[in-house]
Amino acid sequence: MNTPVPDYLADLLRNCKAAHGGELADYIPELASADPTKLAVALTTLDGVIYSAGDDEHEFSIQSISKAFTYAYVIEELGLQRVMRKVGVEPSGEAFNEISLDKTDEQQIKPKNPMINSGAITVHSLIPKAEKSCRAETVRLFFSKLAGRELAFDQEIFHSEKETAFRNLSIGYSLRNFNILESDPVEIVESYVKQCAINVTVKDLVNMMSVLVNDGILPRTGERILSHKTVRQVLTVMTTCGMYNAAGDWLANVGIPAKSGVSGGIIGVLPGQVGLAVFSPKLDRYGNSVRGIDIMQQMSRDMGLHLLEGVPSSRVIINDHDVKQIKPEVIVYKLQGVLQFTEAERLLRKLQDEKQCNHTIVFDLSHISLVNDVGRRMLLDGIDRLRADGHDVALIDPEHIIPDAKTDRDFEPKIYEDLEQIPD
Amino acid sequence: MNTPVPDYLADLLRNCKAAHGGELADYIPELASADPTKLAVALTTLDGVIYSAGDDEHEFSIQSISKAFTYAYVIEELGLQRVMRKVGVEPSGEAFNEISLDKTDEQQIKPKNPMINSGAITVHSLIPKAEKSCRAETVRLFFSKLAGRELAFDQEIFHSEKETAFRNLSIGYSLRNFNILESDPVEIVESYVKQCAINVTVKDLVNMMSVLVNDGILPRTGERILSHKTVRQVLTVMTTCGMYNAAGDWLANVGIPAKSGVSGGIIGVLPGQVGLAVFSPKLDRYGNSVRGIDIMQQMSRDMGLHLLEGVPSSRVIINDHDVKQIKPEVIVYKLQGVLQFTEAERLLRKLQDEKQCNHTIVFDLSHISLVNDVGRRMLLDGIDRLRADGHDVALIDPEHIIPDAKTDRDFEPKIYEDLEQIPD
Amino acid sequence: MNTPVPDYLADLLRNCKAAHGGELADYIPELASADPTKLAVALTTLDGVIYSAGDDEHEFSIQSISKAFTYAYVIEELGLQRVMRKVGVEPSGEAFNEISLDKTDEQQIKPKNPMINSGAITVHSLIPKAEKSCRAETVRLFFSKLAGRELAFDQEIFHSEKETAFRNLSIGYSLRNFNILESDPVEIVESYVKQCAINVTVKDLVNMMSVLVNDGILPRTGERILSHKTVRQVLTVMTTCGMYNAAGDWLANVGIPAKSGVSGGIIGVLPGQVGLAVFSPKLDRYGNSVRGIDIMQQMSRDMGLHLLEGVPSSRVIINDHDVKQIKPEVIVYKLQGVLQFTEAERLLRKLQDEKQCNHTIVFDLSHISLVNDVGRRMLLDGIDRLRADGHDVALIDPEHIIPDAKTDRDFEPKIYEDLEQIPD
Amino acid sequence: MNTPVPDYLADLLRNCKAAHGGELADYIPELASADPTKLAVALTTLDGVIYSAGDDEHEFSIQSISKAFTYAYVIEELGLQRVMRKVGVEPSGEAFNEISLDKTDEQQIKPKNPMINSGAITVHSLIPKAEKSCRAETVRLFFSKLAGRELAFDQEIFHSEKETAFRNLSIGYSLRNFNILESDPVEIVESYVKQCAINVTVKDLVNMMSVLVNDGILPRTGERILSHKTVRQVLTVMTTCGMYNAAGDWLANVGIPAKSGVSGGIIGVLPGQVGLAVFSPKLDRYGNSVRGIDIMQQMSRDMGLHLLEGVPSSRVIINDHDVKQIKPEVIVYKLQGVLQFTEAERLLRKLQDEKQCNHTIVFDLSHISLVNDVGRRMLLDGIDRLRADGHDVALIDPEHIIPDAKTDRDFEPKIYEDLEQIPD
Repeated sequence: MNTPVPDYLADLLRNCKAAHGGELADYIPELASADPTKLAVALTTLDGVIYSAGDDEHEFSIQSISKAFTYAYVIEELGLQRVMRKVGVEPSGEAFNEISLDKTDEQQIKPKNPMINSGAITVHSLIPKAEKSCRAETVRLFFSKLAGRELAFDQEIFHSEKETAFRNLSIGYSLRNFNILESDPVEIVESYVKQCAINVTVKDLVNMMSVLVNDGILPRTGERILSHKTVRQVLTVMTTCGMYNAAGDWLANVGIPAKSGVSGGIIGVLPGQVGLAVFSPKLDRYGNSVRGIDIMQQMSRDMGLHLLEGVPSSRVIINDHDVKQIKPEVIVYKLQGVLQFTEAERLLRKLQDEKQCNHTIVFDLSHISLVNDVGRRMLLDGIDRLRADGHDVALIDPEHIIPDAKTDRDFEPKIYEDLEQIPD
Repeated sequence: MNTPVPDYLADLLRNCKAAHGGELADYIPELASADPTKLAVALTTLDGVIYSAGDDEHEFSIQSISKAFTYAYVIEELGLQRVMRKVGVEPSGEAFNEISLDKTDEQQIKPKNPMINSGAITVHSLIPKAEKSCRAETVRLFFSKLAGRELAFDQEIFHSEKETAFRNLSIGYSLRNFNILESDPVEIVESYVKQCAINVTVKDLVNMMSVLVNDGILPRTGERILSHKTVRQVLTVMTTCGMYNAAGDWLANVGIPAKSGVSGGIIGVLPGQVGLAVFSPKLDRYGNSVRGIDIMQQMSRDMGLHLLEGVPSSRVIINDHDVKQIKPEVIVYKLQGVLQFTEAERLLRKLQDEKQCNHTIVFDLSHISLVNDVGRRMLLDGIDRLRADGHDVALIDPEHIIPDAKTDRDFEPKIYEDLEQIPD
Repeated sequence: MNTPVPDYLADLLRNCKAAHGGELADYIPELASADPTKLAVALTTLDGVIYSAGDDEHEFSIQSISKAFTYAYVIEELGLQRVMRKVGVEPSGEAFNEISLDKTDEQQIKPKNPMINSGAITVHSLIPKAEKSCRAETVRLFFSKLAGRELAFDQEIFHSEKETAFRNLSIGYSLRNFNILESDPVEIVESYVKQCAINVTVKDLVNMMSVLVNDGILPRTGERILSHKTVRQVLTVMTTCGMYNAAGDWLANVGIPAKSGVSGGIIGVLPGQVGLAVFSPKLDRYGNSVRGIDIMQQMSRDMGLHLLEGVPSSRVIINDHDVKQIKPEVIVYKLQGVLQFTEAERLLRKLQDEKQCNHTIVFDLSHISLVNDVGRRMLLDGIDRLRADGHDVALIDPEHIIPDAKTDRDFEPKIYEDLEQIPD
Repeated sequence: MNTPVPDYLADLLRNCKAAHGGELADYIPELASADPTKLAVALTTLDGVIYSAGDDEHEFSIQSISKAFTYAYVIEELGLQRVMRKVGVEPSGEAFNEISLDKTDEQQIKPKNPMINSGAITVHSLIPKAEKSCRAETVRLFFSKLAGRELAFDQEIFHSEKETAFRNLSIGYSLRNFNILESDPVEIVESYVKQCAINVTVKDLVNMMSVLVNDGILPRTGERILSHKTVRQVLTVMTTCGMYNAAGDWLANVGIPAKSGVSGGIIGVLPGQVGLAVFSPKLDRYGNSVRGIDIMQQMSRDMGLHLLEGVPSSRVIINDHDVKQIKPEVIVYKLQGVLQFTEAERLLRKLQDEKQCNHTIVFDLSHISLVNDVGRRMLLDGIDRLRADGHDVALIDPEHIIPDAKTDRDFEPKIYEDLEQIPD
């Protein structure tokens, strides 16, 4: 059989093609001459499998979508604290090309967030300068690594935008005036414009996004590119500032941290689940792709992807029929799913309520898919408490999901491979 | 044994008591005379179990925290569309007592969101008016129902605020001027001030929040109070507008949809997981409780609660050792965890890759904790595809987790209680 | 013969009647039902003679024009300093119904000027409260005194505006919140609305304005109503803030300190020269009478009335043929026009250049129309200097235009009635 | 004798030297190193006589004072209409280095006025470009012509400002973005910065201003440099926009159209009377010279110079003792002073009231210093009306102050040189 995902994506485009309206970006001649019929969608899973449909080989300039990835790069290189000194994380409530400086901190005036132009130009200026190449080249190499292929600059777009980058140059000089930029704004703005002119396809975009979906590890190679903290920071600003002038509306209706670009692309990330990219050049009055928004909304609805849907997976950690007394003095709790605070709390509460009188309690962790730090600590704390009540405790943990199993009171529970190993 | 959660909460307060700084709210004499040493925290689990520590019986006026619950009430009563015509969902980027009208929609000027005063007063005005009581009384009854006990107005706070509600009266008349309020603003503002004067404890707050944690169903009674859509809307505005002037910063650092009040309370909700409430009267310059923020941050870190942490629970739907050929022509896939898009995609991809040649494929759903709509549809679609490849398909589903199991092609797979039922 | 001024005014209306466009004020039903064909103009000379044409007996509510006169009243009662603490004098650059608070002075937030509603309401609140009547009654009595007849409130307009004064009530509560208003804003706003509902004709308006034209003295009675300083202050704010949103444009094109009202009136004052009033109910989008502006522009052009035209009258203080040696040792300078700094400087320069060798110098002041303080001081200083050079000096001053003629060096020049009195 | 004006100016500086406070401009190193003790004042009369005191030979860069003169130059070259399409005349209510664009006219976004940097840069860009020199050179030549000597650029100031002109470059690119600037903003801003670096003394400034005082004619040469309309426009924007952030306050207290510069100069013009310039480098927080303001206020008070003082010179056109019946059928009205609307109205009213029965009426104009257009028209209209009543009318007008004396009804009154010429 074949997985139905490609069919689903193709259906999505077919049903959407009807969506009319919107205008091509007109402030750059090259964008104004884009083919308005182009339409593409792509999706990456957590483990980096890519699905796509439509004009998925069509290249377009990445434009503002680049802001999210350059922000990630710079945080990784300089540390979050240094970047936060230069650019804030607050929604601006203004158009993307307003300078929107945050002046609440008298020590340091700074752009409100990295998703508006003033913030993105500042972020670009923070890229450590290589000796023989410009910052845009550093960006291109980074994006290429994420995309898994050599990306190139669209020279026509670059030169066209450079000639008319008056607004960005105005912003650049204003940033220089406040010493937010620390060197020649013309050079920085030109390099920033070049960053925006990197050509991508929707497949490139989802390949790039897979590192955000997968908590910083590029699934294709297994290499950690971004720290957990960096990923969370990037997703945060995509949540509140990614879609211009309509952060609240987008979060309410689509609920996916996102970023759009003026060439017609939109990306969306649901951490731990999927990354989405769409492309269609006609824009609404805010500069977002009309059909792109339509498709993203549809996917959010269809796939139940919404940041605030809740995390229902954690509802069950243990079923009653999974508590089994296998021997007179041994009771086994077969746990399943994930072990986070919510599940650990429920497990320990069950133990508290049931007041087992069996001497030995065994936790079977072989069906646990994931344990986070608080889950691990609570389980070990529970073991100490059970021992204080007079119980012995052991684990079945064939995959060493609790690697360094030692409690605060220095007790190390016995660990078995499976039920059969438990001695009589 | 006893669950360690109470000890954890007590520790949290002990470690925080050192946090100095902040000032009592001074614009109302009654708030200015609050006891600054009071400190309390409470937590509700998804199933409505309450933990608390510190001054958890101390009553204080609910103030702006009421905004979230009244918003929920009004959406439920009038429908989201009617409420959205009156109040938007965008971050305001301004202080809570700025009127912050959104004028982008020329048809209808409206407050930017329901978490600022102008929006909350408008929301209050939408409460259907009972014949013999004021709107504040409707609110009090609703809050009491959520809290599980009879809440009361703090008459001193109410009268004190009413006398000095100049700013809110100014806002009220301005809203009346734009016809956002449709009747006497003095009456509405007074009733709104009364809403803010309802007394609660942190335990009341988490009881009230359990309905938001649990997707609209009050866990204590099992009654559905709010629709799924209402809960999502409330959580959305709490995410982007709950903490004044610092939405982005809060989301980056704490990552929990929240709401604070000027009497010193803060609530935070992670849907499907926990609800948190803290209380400490001293405020920072934005009007948020200083120690409250400190404790919320600590809990977010300790418990791994962050909206953008990702949903790692879904990583495993099927282990290799859970695929078992139990008979020459029958293979069983034992699934576990939740079945959403991500997991369904992975399952169907596995089937595609493995190209089973066994005639009959059985999906064992007895360890699945939850299936959402897209998971169900993808599974059924996969079944049709497997049948098109010549397979027979059956389910083990003792708890009828796929209730109406019929595919688009009208095939109804056989359903067994357990493995033993499968005939040779 | 008859003076041509009435014919001129009648012509003006005839030629203007063609001016179309504009809308009746619609925010109050009573104003919306005004007769749009009404058209009137009136003019007062410096000495209080009134000319008028058109519907000059038609009464209309004074509305915002009242702001200028109440401001004058309050400065006169409380002193400029106390009023300046509450209301500034800066152009607001915003609509008249914006609150436009000036926050540059951290000590005292205050409305930017008295010509916007927030400023005018604050000014109204400063009227000393009489025991048995409201502030509006104090205003009515003051306006009646200026107008020379008993003015009355338009009760329908008053009640209609009071019912819909939401915007002003909003402003009032905001002013109360900042303690700019110091008592109940509802009472103040209602009284302010009543002030705006005083009925006047264009003839009443120019009668009222004659006190501003004539430097504070009511020409009809000769009574000093306002100090010189008060008049200058009122004219200053009329210059920069009288015509909403278009102060610069108005000053450039019309050049007359002015104030308009929403019922369709406009007044204009050129100090020392004329006062003008026009009435026509249809308004442009800024709230100024369309035909009123047209007529004011025409009058400014026709009559050469422009604040920045310069003061050409002073060009000649002395003609060469007016210096006459009447006796061998006596030379007479016949001066004419006014004697201010400019003229005095020119006279003294002439004396310096000419180095008269005649013993006695006589200044004939009988053709001088006016001497201001600096002119007087410079003339007396010049007399001392001439005496130091060895001259004797005398004055011909039949009307005692230099009342207390004594120099710094205690010299008192002889004063003659006419040339004939000069002894040989 | 010597005129007391130089002594007065010297006294003024002596009394002011005590004024402390203020800071040197610090944004350019060259300005920060200015000698803070320098103090100078100069004055020009209507006919171009210059008085000065203090460091009146000390050169400083003209800075923003140049804005007024360049504005005059550009209006003269292009016509007011073309300039108004690019730059407005409204007060900005914002700091001088805010861009302050006026967006009320959707057709053309433009800087609010020519006295803020964005407006001044735009005005500079309108200077017609000479083939072989930059716009700043055109300005330098124009300023030199007005000053009556060859002015030079301060190269150090120019280069220093050019290096740090980030704010102006930001403004320049923003203006370019809106197509308000139509060519390379870097070139325009550099040339504008050079304009600001022209060195002047206070004597140069008053020489330059004499053309504004004298209605466009340079008194030194008698050459008309600016039209009447241009002068009025420049004075208008100096009135409302010349002193940053404090237009209303300045107009109320000093009442002289003015412009200040960051190097410490302030100029003030009272049309038809005087031009003033002061220099002292220490600035208040708005960027105005502290001692400069002090001296300007003092001069305004001492000399009775205030735009809104009224024009008292016109009070007398005819004295009762100047109406003389010289023959049985001939009455002579000896007029004096100026003949504008106010005086003409009074003369005609007198004639109306007196109902002369003498056949012939003679107006003696030999003591009239000036007749404006409306005065002339009203006098001729009065003559027609007197003739309609049966009178004959003649003029004594030795200087042909009424050049083309013919009434609307084609009557040409007889004109005599003096009384003696009148036949019996």
